[in-house]
Amino acid sequence: MAAAFAAIGGKWKLTLLYWLGHGESHFAGLRRRSAPITPKVLAEQLRELEADGLVERVATGPVPAPVIYRLTPYGSTVLPVVEGVRVWGEEHLRRSPAAGTPMSCVNAIA
Amino acid sequence: MAAAFAAIGGKWKLTLLYWLGHGESHFAGLRRRSAPITPKVLAEQLRELEADGLVERVATGPVPAPVIYRLTPYGSTVLPVVEGVRVWGEEHLRRSPAAGTPMSCVNAIA
Repeated sequence: MAAAFAAIGGKWKLTLLYWLGHGESHFAGLRRRSAPITPKVLAEQLRELEADGLVERVATGPVPAPVIYRLTPYGSTVLPVVEGVRVWGEEHLRRSPAAGTPMSCVNAIA
Repeated sequence: MAAAFAAIGGKWKLTLLYWLGHGESHFAGLRRRSAPITPKVLAEQLRELEADGLVERVATGPVPAPVIYRLTPYGSTVLPVVEGVRVWGEEHLRRSPAAGTPMSCVNAIA
């Protein structure tokens, strides 16, 4: 069962798919929007998303032209799921801390 | 944005919420169904889910009676989202490897 959740489970993959759903991006743009992700983790997550066929790297010209990342058509099929998680998560952040300290959220933005 | 995904992002939290959606469970039962999770990671994930108000620990009697874990009513509100991720993930596992080696899935079940 964990395997079924692995391809998009993880806050970073969900975050990256969310931003790529808004349009293609350079590595630096993804890094900025996904702060505080580290370059190492970002590169690793992008490699896994690419290996899973969700994201593609596109060279914009001969080296050293920047590479852009974008969702594949298959990657776009996951956007409704990402949106479901986002809507629930935003609502969760709005809840009163009295109902439970959002520890994992605190960790995520620390 | 990562914060909105943090509370349930992660393959382990999704997996644990999925199983707890089937009914309350002891630690050992969750561990078995969520293999290959380690006890340390399981305890940590359960603590975070509890701190976020999604899961509650219930003592079934005086110590050393086992503790059970179950979804809170609030935790149940996340089940449709978990189901969306699961359905997409199961479909993803069924895809031909030709369309992209499912690296993250391989890692999850290794």
